[in-house]
Amino acid sequence: MIVRDAPSLPQLLFAIKGSIIIQIAPRMLFFALYTAAVLGIDRSLYPLPHVSIAAMGIFGVALSLFLGFRNNAAYDRWWEARKLWGGMIADVRSLGRELLLFLGEGPARAKILKTTVAFAHLHRGWLRQSDTVAEARRTDPAAGDYAARRNPPDAALRELMLVLEAEAAAGRLSDMGRRTLAERLASLTLAQAGCERIAGSPLPFVYSLLVLRTSYLYCTLLPFALIETAGWFAPVVSAIVAYVFFGLSAVTDELEHPFRDVVNGLPLDAMCRVIEISVAEALGEAAAEPMRPVDGVLS
Amino acid sequence: MIVRDAPSLPQLLFAIKGSIIIQIAPRMLFFALYTAAVLGIDRSLYPLPHVSIAAMGIFGVALSLFLGFRNNAAYDRWWEARKLWGGMIADVRSLGRELLLFLGEGPARAKILKTTVAFAHLHRGWLRQSDTVAEARRTDPAAGDYAARRNPPDAALRELMLVLEAEAAAGRLSDMGRRTLAERLASLTLAQAGCERIAGSPLPFVYSLLVLRTSYLYCTLLPFALIETAGWFAPVVSAIVAYVFFGLSAVTDELEHPFRDVVNGLPLDAMCRVIEISVAEALGEAAAEPMRPVDGVLS
Amino acid sequence: MIVRDAPSLPQLLFAIKGSIIIQIAPRMLFFALYTAAVLGIDRSLYPLPHVSIAAMGIFGVALSLFLGFRNNAAYDRWWEARKLWGGMIADVRSLGRELLLFLGEGPARAKILKTTVAFAHLHRGWLRQSDTVAEARRTDPAAGDYAARRNPPDAALRELMLVLEAEAAAGRLSDMGRRTLAERLASLTLAQAGCERIAGSPLPFVYSLLVLRTSYLYCTLLPFALIETAGWFAPVVSAIVAYVFFGLSAVTDELEHPFRDVVNGLPLDAMCRVIEISVAEALGEAAAEPMRPVDGVLS
Amino acid sequence: MIVRDAPSLPQLLFAIKGSIIIQIAPRMLFFALYTAAVLGIDRSLYPLPHVSIAAMGIFGVALSLFLGFRNNAAYDRWWEARKLWGGMIADVRSLGRELLLFLGEGPARAKILKTTVAFAHLHRGWLRQSDTVAEARRTDPAAGDYAARRNPPDAALRELMLVLEAEAAAGRLSDMGRRTLAERLASLTLAQAGCERIAGSPLPFVYSLLVLRTSYLYCTLLPFALIETAGWFAPVVSAIVAYVFFGLSAVTDELEHPFRDVVNGLPLDAMCRVIEISVAEALGEAAAEPMRPVDGVLS
Amino acid sequence: MIVRDAPSLPQLLFAIKGSIIIQIAPRMLFFALYTAAVLGIDRSLYPLPHVSIAAMGIFGVALSLFLGFRNNAAYDRWWEARKLWGGMIADVRSLGRELLLFLGEGPARAKILKTTVAFAHLHRGWLRQSDTVAEARRTDPAAGDYAARRNPPDAALRELMLVLEAEAAAGRLSDMGRRTLAERLASLTLAQAGCERIAGSPLPFVYSLLVLRTSYLYCTLLPFALIETAGWFAPVVSAIVAYVFFGLSAVTDELEHPFRDVVNGLPLDAMCRVIEISVAEALGEAAAEPMRPVDGVLS
Repeated sequence: MIVRDAPSLPQLLFAIKGSIIIQIAPRMLFFALYTAAVLGIDRSLYPLPHVSIAAMGIFGVALSLFLGFRNNAAYDRWWEARKLWGGMIADVRSLGRELLLFLGEGPARAKILKTTVAFAHLHRGWLRQSDTVAEARRTDPAAGDYAARRNPPDAALRELMLVLEAEAAAGRLSDMGRRTLAERLASLTLAQAGCERIAGSPLPFVYSLLVLRTSYLYCTLLPFALIETAGWFAPVVSAIVAYVFFGLSAVTDELEHPFRDVVNGLPLDAMCRVIEISVAEALGEAAAEPMRPVDGVLS
Repeated sequence: MIVRDAPSLPQLLFAIKGSIIIQIAPRMLFFALYTAAVLGIDRSLYPLPHVSIAAMGIFGVALSLFLGFRNNAAYDRWWEARKLWGGMIADVRSLGRELLLFLGEGPARAKILKTTVAFAHLHRGWLRQSDTVAEARRTDPAAGDYAARRNPPDAALRELMLVLEAEAAAGRLSDMGRRTLAERLASLTLAQAGCERIAGSPLPFVYSLLVLRTSYLYCTLLPFALIETAGWFAPVVSAIVAYVFFGLSAVTDELEHPFRDVVNGLPLDAMCRVIEISVAEALGEAAAEPMRPVDGVLS
Repeated sequence: MIVRDAPSLPQLLFAIKGSIIIQIAPRMLFFALYTAAVLGIDRSLYPLPHVSIAAMGIFGVALSLFLGFRNNAAYDRWWEARKLWGGMIADVRSLGRELLLFLGEGPARAKILKTTVAFAHLHRGWLRQSDTVAEARRTDPAAGDYAARRNPPDAALRELMLVLEAEAAAGRLSDMGRRTLAERLASLTLAQAGCERIAGSPLPFVYSLLVLRTSYLYCTLLPFALIETAGWFAPVVSAIVAYVFFGLSAVTDELEHPFRDVVNGLPLDAMCRVIEISVAEALGEAAAEPMRPVDGVLS
Repeated sequence: MIVRDAPSLPQLLFAIKGSIIIQIAPRMLFFALYTAAVLGIDRSLYPLPHVSIAAMGIFGVALSLFLGFRNNAAYDRWWEARKLWGGMIADVRSLGRELLLFLGEGPARAKILKTTVAFAHLHRGWLRQSDTVAEARRTDPAAGDYAARRNPPDAALRELMLVLEAEAAAGRLSDMGRRTLAERLASLTLAQAGCERIAGSPLPFVYSLLVLRTSYLYCTLLPFALIETAGWFAPVVSAIVAYVFFGLSAVTDELEHPFRDVVNGLPLDAMCRVIEISVAEALGEAAAEPMRPVDGVLS
Repeated sequence: MIVRDAPSLPQLLFAIKGSIIIQIAPRMLFFALYTAAVLGIDRSLYPLPHVSIAAMGIFGVALSLFLGFRNNAAYDRWWEARKLWGGMIADVRSLGRELLLFLGEGPARAKILKTTVAFAHLHRGWLRQSDTVAEARRTDPAAGDYAARRNPPDAALRELMLVLEAEAAAGRLSDMGRRTLAERLASLTLAQAGCERIAGSPLPFVYSLLVLRTSYLYCTLLPFALIETAGWFAPVVSAIVAYVFFGLSAVTDELEHPFRDVVNGLPLDAMCRVIEISVAEALGEAAAEPMRPVDGVLS
């Protein structure tokens, strides 16, 4: 995630990080050249058929609405994913406090909280399809065992429950405590399943096809409408239209998958660090520094 | 559900799976030919009345808004259905843990979890109007009895509660445990009723009529507007407009019914498998493989 | 509610049920004739002032946005109403199970569940302002008494609570059971109040005025814009525009009041039947058939 | 709130109540005359510069989107306010039932329910900045004391809790009852704070400025675009555009503040009466009549 | 936050506070002059290429949709932030009442409520990155200690829980009381994490780039379209378009960060005062005055 403010003028002109310009520059260039070629043929060789710009306007509106829809849906996924992680951070903090109230400060509480940190790392690894066992093992030596299961973060939560059950069996956890802590774990479970849902269910593929095909058709027809209406500006207008349509598509593609390790993705590393800090402070241990953005990007 | 990334250029040009092109190609062809005919008559036989493209623009905007509305509503149904199933997966995992805490690892817990798997299969069968009793019977031999009731998944949940009641009557389940587990079942019940709602209440029929009728009217009038403004491109423009309008309509029709077994439908089979895996791991049994997309499609 | 799939081509051309065409045909005809008159006067008698179609476009966009807003708001009301009823169905099923767990199978449970059916019928009657006492009395002979109160469904819920209180006073209902069942009743109460809210608070009247007045103004001015731009198609375009604008208005009017007994209203009768079936199966009694659509309409 | 159905044709033409026509008529007239003046000068004295109607179209679209946004936000506030009050009505009914179950029918229950009615009146008074102490005193003689505090409805809820505490101290309220009733009060507290939020946080002022300034600029420039395109219809078109833009702004202003005592405001008086009736029926006392709309308006 | 009503006519013309006019005036001026220069060159030196205004219209619609999207997203953040603070106010009031019910009026209750006030101040300080320790210390002398931790408001909540634990250990807090109060603290924790989320996760940077770059491109090309269509009004139209596009961008930038101490930001100081008043009244102490807007602005 890029943690930067409104762009300054120079950034606006030259910022590349966080921009999608590099990705779409070839297409912009292609459509500019193509438009120039259409214009050149029309003016020098023989007149090509023209399309009224008003006819383009009609499906320009439709295309804008579809792009807008996809963009909204992708942003909602990104923001919901952020909310789910925010809820997990709150759950971890509340868990620390509820353990204090119902179990007291003891080894079971520390064990549970440390396994929660491992859960967060394994969950991050699952979502990013990267190996986070080493980090999970820093607080919970058994993290490797969880990682051997089909769903490692779920295994970590199961382990938590076993600790609670042992405490309950030993008479150290009241019925009310069991219920309160079970609810907290259910809340973590729900957030985990929510993240899995977002990671595993992309936007319906048919939208990507529909929107991209329509964008290409639009940009292919556009020069025939620009011949009369934009004159020698036509290649510039084509490039800008390509910038707007393919740019928004590219943004949508990044936000649609909020857990990927891209500059506009969610800072899962930093959020796991926040959880580590929360647990350390709850246990009265020395807390690490929060992660700082590197070159404006929080990973 | 198609689990594929942003389409590559060749996919973009040729992808047919997950596309709706086959469904709407006849209409695109029809309107292209019709437009060519109108154009031919106008140019060769005698001039037809023209409509200004601006007049078409006005109701093009209105039509885009209606299509956009229907599309939003259909996507919301699809995504809500996915959320409900995601919530059910979380509920099953939490149920496994709460049973551990309140009942301990014993036959009752195993029985309940296995009946939950049967519930998921029967629920899937109800939603898809397909026969899933055989799969449900794999974990719960009594699944055939549930299937004989008016609402088989509801009967499965009732069975769960009878097991809990027996445990309670035998003094093995505390009052707090009853409450906690009853809440979990209520959560499953709510998700089930939510899916029934989506399956049983389509978008108001009047929208389909209004949108489709307007689309046909639009495409019928369009050639008279394109005569002047698009020249020999007119059939192409007509076909593209038909592609955009009927294509979005077709997408909407698929997403409106998220439980149907179509390529853009929800992967209920795969999600039932996730539930099976979660239960198997909770019981410490060997878990099946998650389902893999076949030819890019998860069923 | 019309339970039909995407319309087939003949339906598209001729479907009248669920369509709003009959309601708005007079207005379509009127504006077609009016446009023909304007056109005739302009061409034969003396030229009338013209309005540019672009000027119409401006407020066409504004009008489309307002219509779109009203339509969204009405659909949200319709869908929220459906969700509330779906939640009530889930509540009734959960109630059946929770009574089993906390009260056991006995006369009190049967009494409560049967009164719940009466509640559903009385609630339906309240929302539709129709007399449903006879149906309510089928399961609860005291339904007539509830109906004599200001808010009959609320009286039915109060009766439920009295049964619970008697059980509690007799020592057959634990504190935890009281709480669990009180929560279930509170959930029904909330759904009931939500339905009352939708039934009692229409969309602000000012929107209807604003939208309808603007639609009439638009259709009145439109012919002066179509004179030049649509030629002899003008009456057709006028009729289509009237169809789109008044048609959407009419749809909105139906969905705004989701409880009315109209073809696009919610199938309250069928949902009460679902509740009856759920209760019958929970009590192990013979369950009625679910209601079937009559001529494609579920009432 | 105006409780009227879709307007009939005569209402449509002449309805003034609930309409915002009176408020904006001066502006409509002004812009009509101004447009006529511009037109007269252009035609008789010397030609003024013209603006293309298409240029106006561009910012017409932008302006429509802003107006649409403000309108959506205002309507959401209005509807959320209605939901909060609907939730309070449900809370009061549930409170009556839960008191029955946990405290039984006694003086404490009556006292609490009557104080709840006072709470509703004081809350309404706070939101409308009107004096409702007399009405609150009808059911709770101590209402005057609450009214002397900074936040009278909060003081009424505090009083409720003191009654509960006394019952608990006297051993008449179990721990579970305390919790259940505390949750109900917390729900009322949340609804109260939600209403305070809506009443105290208007839409950001900058939107009003931006939208109104742009509307005025638009209407000022419009005549120069209408000179060519609308001819002698220009004053009419100007007046209609002013009607649409300022009309929607005026609607937004009313709905933005849903608690004010205006015709499109929420019927707080009627909803307090519903609460009175619910309490009376819960206590078995004679219930007042629900309030009836006066001249189509429910206050 | 500006607490002012709909602007009066003079305000409309001259209001500067709360307006973003000062911020964007340079850009409006620049584009007006630039347009005048383009126009001058075209008319006096040699004709420049023209762009059809319709071509601008196409991406004007797209740009409006993007601006609209960003604006919606920013407003949603602002309003969600307000809701979270409103929920915290309700939580504090409910906390006061629940402490009364479960702990009684004693020093522990007072200590907890006063620490809650410190929590609110520290939370505000964290969100605004300002020093609020002095204000927090007014009610809780240990506020300085909390401020030394990584997350001061979280430390304050931890302190609250320690007090509860001591009460529980001393036998003064029942199991049910523990659970009820733990839930209340969890609710505060969730609201705190929600605010952190909004403060720490700006809208994806790529949107700002895309929207601002497109706006600049638009305004740069616009004069070439206005040459023909707006004549000598062209600089005025350019300035207005710049006003609309950059104005909305500037509004979005302010609302996107709802906790910053700007005129359109949330009144955190005033809301902390509301919390102080609620606590004072709950403790029966003299309550401060609510904060009054200074010059129409509540900070």
